[in-house]
Amino acid sequence: MHQSATSRDIERVKETIISMGLKPIPIPGSERTAIGVIGNQGWVDDTPLRNLKGIIDIIHVTKPYKLVSRDFHPSDTVVKLGRDVTTGGKSPFLLIAGPCAVESREQIFRVARLLKRIGVRVLRGGAYKPRTSPHSFQGLQDEGLRILSDVRKETGLLAVTEVMNPEHVEKVSEAVDILQIGARNMQNFDLLREVGRAKRPVILKRGLSATIEEWLASAEYILLEGNPDVILCERGIRTFETLTRNTSDLAVIPLVKSLSHLPVIYDPSHATGKRSLIRPMALASIVTGADGVMIEVHPEPEQALSDGPQSLNLKEFERLVSEIKELDAFVNKKRLRA
Amino acid sequence: MHQSATSRDIERVKETIISMGLKPIPIPGSERTAIGVIGNQGWVDDTPLRNLKGIIDIIHVTKPYKLVSRDFHPSDTVVKLGRDVTTGGKSPFLLIAGPCAVESREQIFRVARLLKRIGVRVLRGGAYKPRTSPHSFQGLQDEGLRILSDVRKETGLLAVTEVMNPEHVEKVSEAVDILQIGARNMQNFDLLREVGRAKRPVILKRGLSATIEEWLASAEYILLEGNPDVILCERGIRTFETLTRNTSDLAVIPLVKSLSHLPVIYDPSHATGKRSLIRPMALASIVTGADGVMIEVHPEPEQALSDGPQSLNLKEFERLVSEIKELDAFVNKKRLRA
Amino acid sequence: MHQSATSRDIERVKETIISMGLKPIPIPGSERTAIGVIGNQGWVDDTPLRNLKGIIDIIHVTKPYKLVSRDFHPSDTVVKLGRDVTTGGKSPFLLIAGPCAVESREQIFRVARLLKRIGVRVLRGGAYKPRTSPHSFQGLQDEGLRILSDVRKETGLLAVTEVMNPEHVEKVSEAVDILQIGARNMQNFDLLREVGRAKRPVILKRGLSATIEEWLASAEYILLEGNPDVILCERGIRTFETLTRNTSDLAVIPLVKSLSHLPVIYDPSHATGKRSLIRPMALASIVTGADGVMIEVHPEPEQALSDGPQSLNLKEFERLVSEIKELDAFVNKKRLRA
Amino acid sequence: MHQSATSRDIERVKETIISMGLKPIPIPGSERTAIGVIGNQGWVDDTPLRNLKGIIDIIHVTKPYKLVSRDFHPSDTVVKLGRDVTTGGKSPFLLIAGPCAVESREQIFRVARLLKRIGVRVLRGGAYKPRTSPHSFQGLQDEGLRILSDVRKETGLLAVTEVMNPEHVEKVSEAVDILQIGARNMQNFDLLREVGRAKRPVILKRGLSATIEEWLASAEYILLEGNPDVILCERGIRTFETLTRNTSDLAVIPLVKSLSHLPVIYDPSHATGKRSLIRPMALASIVTGADGVMIEVHPEPEQALSDGPQSLNLKEFERLVSEIKELDAFVNKKRLRA
Repeated sequence: MHQSATSRDIERVKETIISMGLKPIPIPGSERTAIGVIGNQGWVDDTPLRNLKGIIDIIHVTKPYKLVSRDFHPSDTVVKLGRDVTTGGKSPFLLIAGPCAVESREQIFRVARLLKRIGVRVLRGGAYKPRTSPHSFQGLQDEGLRILSDVRKETGLLAVTEVMNPEHVEKVSEAVDILQIGARNMQNFDLLREVGRAKRPVILKRGLSATIEEWLASAEYILLEGNPDVILCERGIRTFETLTRNTSDLAVIPLVKSLSHLPVIYDPSHATGKRSLIRPMALASIVTGADGVMIEVHPEPEQALSDGPQSLNLKEFERLVSEIKELDAFVNKKRLRA
Repeated sequence: MHQSATSRDIERVKETIISMGLKPIPIPGSERTAIGVIGNQGWVDDTPLRNLKGIIDIIHVTKPYKLVSRDFHPSDTVVKLGRDVTTGGKSPFLLIAGPCAVESREQIFRVARLLKRIGVRVLRGGAYKPRTSPHSFQGLQDEGLRILSDVRKETGLLAVTEVMNPEHVEKVSEAVDILQIGARNMQNFDLLREVGRAKRPVILKRGLSATIEEWLASAEYILLEGNPDVILCERGIRTFETLTRNTSDLAVIPLVKSLSHLPVIYDPSHATGKRSLIRPMALASIVTGADGVMIEVHPEPEQALSDGPQSLNLKEFERLVSEIKELDAFVNKKRLRA
Repeated sequence: MHQSATSRDIERVKETIISMGLKPIPIPGSERTAIGVIGNQGWVDDTPLRNLKGIIDIIHVTKPYKLVSRDFHPSDTVVKLGRDVTTGGKSPFLLIAGPCAVESREQIFRVARLLKRIGVRVLRGGAYKPRTSPHSFQGLQDEGLRILSDVRKETGLLAVTEVMNPEHVEKVSEAVDILQIGARNMQNFDLLREVGRAKRPVILKRGLSATIEEWLASAEYILLEGNPDVILCERGIRTFETLTRNTSDLAVIPLVKSLSHLPVIYDPSHATGKRSLIRPMALASIVTGADGVMIEVHPEPEQALSDGPQSLNLKEFERLVSEIKELDAFVNKKRLRA
Repeated sequence: MHQSATSRDIERVKETIISMGLKPIPIPGSERTAIGVIGNQGWVDDTPLRNLKGIIDIIHVTKPYKLVSRDFHPSDTVVKLGRDVTTGGKSPFLLIAGPCAVESREQIFRVARLLKRIGVRVLRGGAYKPRTSPHSFQGLQDEGLRILSDVRKETGLLAVTEVMNPEHVEKVSEAVDILQIGARNMQNFDLLREVGRAKRPVILKRGLSATIEEWLASAEYILLEGNPDVILCERGIRTFETLTRNTSDLAVIPLVKSLSHLPVIYDPSHATGKRSLIRPMALASIVTGADGVMIEVHPEPEQALSDGPQSLNLKEFERLVSEIKELDAFVNKKRLRA
């Protein structure tokens, strides 16, 4: 819609869209409002709209996503994670850290105290763990949620944990601040719809063999249910290379940010699967325009019940955070960020 | 256990396993009973078992699956699908056919009448469709289930449909005879557990980027909940080749059958994505030892709401079925099957 | 050109093409002659040709290959390998067998005697071996060529061996009947050009990560230099799956045969890398329309200097050949071949 | 060998190795000399060596490469490219730039003048171009070499060009300063051996589907022939993702540098295939420890005969060079480099 379009103009456009059997989705931006049209299967005849007042342009989108696209929503989405924590746009570089799995109250509190001390605001920890084999440790489940809920209250940290089952969305939303959809569930569409109805921001990890288009189309499921607060998380794809756990092309970050307005963070722990590679990749992601990183940190990586070889210990993480801050400040100052 | 082991011997072994903090799973075979041991994380000290009566051998399994493995269960599993329809072992070559999605009562009944006439016993049809984009046709959902339920009753055909949500397992189990887990949900572990508690056989499709080991470990989730009736379905993996929809290595069929006792069927429609390639690949799968095929058939492929380019029309399918029967009979007679 | 086009008509078309700065390549078929036009970069203005006598149709080809395409040459190419051995079209199913590497005179003669006895006409054996590491056995090289040359003379078998270096094409062409381009050299363009100038048929293996289009474009290099006798050989591509050596989609065979007129054979040994999978895949390839198979056979696979785990012994191979003949005869009789 | 080992000790060790039927390769380091042993196939019985004077340790290497490994040669190799230009170790970040293909004298001189002005010392340009289709532009070939040779003489820049044929190695070595082996020829072993005998440094690109181990084993071929001056170049691998030309995991850079002592550079142009992604990836590679970058630059990318969409124009490149220098200086100063 034109900058000068009135709310009445907008109403008329919406009504016309409804009369065409379609659904209008207003997308307010800083300067103007766009109105997405959904519900069509294939090409839409736009004749009824052409002469309505206040319309600048009618763009036919052929991508499998619309709400997620910059075509509809040119300015960066800023996701609010907590009272004074945001990500996306001009927000500070987001740091999320914690163990792969919540293993005990003591383990989580040790990590939480470190995060608190060094100014990291978001704690990750898996309560429900998706494991290849049913014979592997499956997480502490509800007990894990309780520990996360307690640590939030006592420390003021924000917590993020993975949700694997549509039925759990409600209780997980109560226990933590941010929901995570894991790589294996990127195309679990009923789960996506359910977190789309939740009142929590969602971190959506890229699937092991998902194209960029499929990943954005999965985000579309969440936005379409009314939850605009999606953070994309690149964590590598599966290839023939076996020396790294996954192959993660950082070029995906600036590419996705050009296609979509959503924040994009990077998970160097799963992307590489090797402790020694986390530091260089976390630092490199800053330059490519990532909005943040999510890093696995464990008080005793050698004892971890899962993902030990790709976890940093507390000291390593503390050092990395100070390097991230240093590089981030420089890159912003010199406008070197993609 | 030894062939001559008594039920008392078996009881003593089971009690000992329980006293070790583990769980015994008896696996009766045609000649002897094996007792699987689960619940361990890592290596088990087998000292308490070594001198018990009736044990022939103690095999330590390091694979991420056990119940699914031939190590535990050397003879083929035969899955009962309906009163007089089975698959696996020496069962006849299984034919499953139908449209990608249930689109209308008329469409399903047209296909069903053909199947009935040419002796195909199992009808497939998607009620809930997993689609990359939320803007694509999502299936008729509950209405689709009703149509499938009606067609079963009126024709006596068995019906299979995909279930995508743990909450739907009950109602889908009531509507159809066989549950299908789609490729995108192969590692949706809560869904696997739920169909593991259902009283219906389950077709488990291989994930788009799943290794063979991961696929078998997913089947393990279902067996572990108590449902032994799993049918594996190869449907290709994702590679760099773009001229075919997926890359499907038929060598996977004999390989999986050597690793596991479960039946393995083949889906040439999704494997190739091209109508012209379905016939040769369906026929070739017979030679490689497949227990059956699942093929997309649509009365009017050009009008299909999904997967038209990979669907056969009724005439093409009828001709293929007669060729399958011819080749299958020859291959069995000459013992050319893998 | 029209069936009734005279040689004068054809000459005029050729002259006109030359006057356009392009090169005409007449492709005589059983019923009519097509004239390929090459040398253009991008679209050609066909005005000068439109009204010439004898032209039925002018087809603009946008693929990266032309001579190789069925668009230019609709009927199957039949490649003559020896006095009474051909492949392609209606030729009998081609069997090529022998060890990965020529290791000794005795080894080769043992295999050759078996082939002779059971009616296999073509012997394979590597003299120059492309090995990942320079520290692995590199083949007997010139001594290997001498052994192959001797075995041909003494047994009347045809021999095929890999050529890796443009400078070797001449001497290899003297020693054996058929040249092989290995997967790693599929895009070694100077080598392709050189075998394009040789007077020997060429087996062109698909590269480890080559798309079908790239493979056909590599064949185009050979045809363009004047050698029409190219046999394509599918041997699998590299994917994330590690239980098989390569992933070989048999659907590639009917697909390539629809795109190109060249014969296509299948190498189940490299495709699978596992002895137990060679038999089912070799048999399955018959159904998918392969013109032949190339199989690794070694008198003592356990002692082989390379590729032992994927080689059949003489007895296994003899049994497989009789099964191949049986299935091939049935498939031809019942017209089940793709 | 021990730091205090005498040349006589070293001689005795070498003689003993020879007497064992193997070949010693002394590898002098800054503090001590290591002696590589090659020529073995499989395990070596080291009894004859155990008690010789001056030996500290005997390490059995099971990798497919030895000379290339850090096990043998712990300190970084520094490759001398020209009188005062080196790469590797503490050398300055190397910048190589120029068009994909040499198209004309004027084109090359325009790029060369820019490089000269902004302090870039090495010019790239393809004379022989490996192209998927024989119908695409194949490079100016010998005329291209002459242009490169002239521009070197007139400007003092160093030139690098790809060599595709063992027979061309001599003439290409005369025309330019540095030889390049392209991705498609990474396992063209005769070509590797030939550049191993040349007196020029070699840039070895990673193959499209090469594992890291295979890449290092290919470098081993070159070192084994006596040429120690190999520079590895990461340029991405082929995956299912189609929005980028290749998938390039920057984690490969620190990983390879931990496995090998050779310099590693990065080619963001081929890695991404998209102009907009070159800048962020070139900058990010600095942080991951790359020794340099090779970037496609063309005076008029829109008119380029090959790879236009992934080429920077002169102005874009000039800006990027200044950003690279800025970031490189900061990263070195703050010790943020991997």
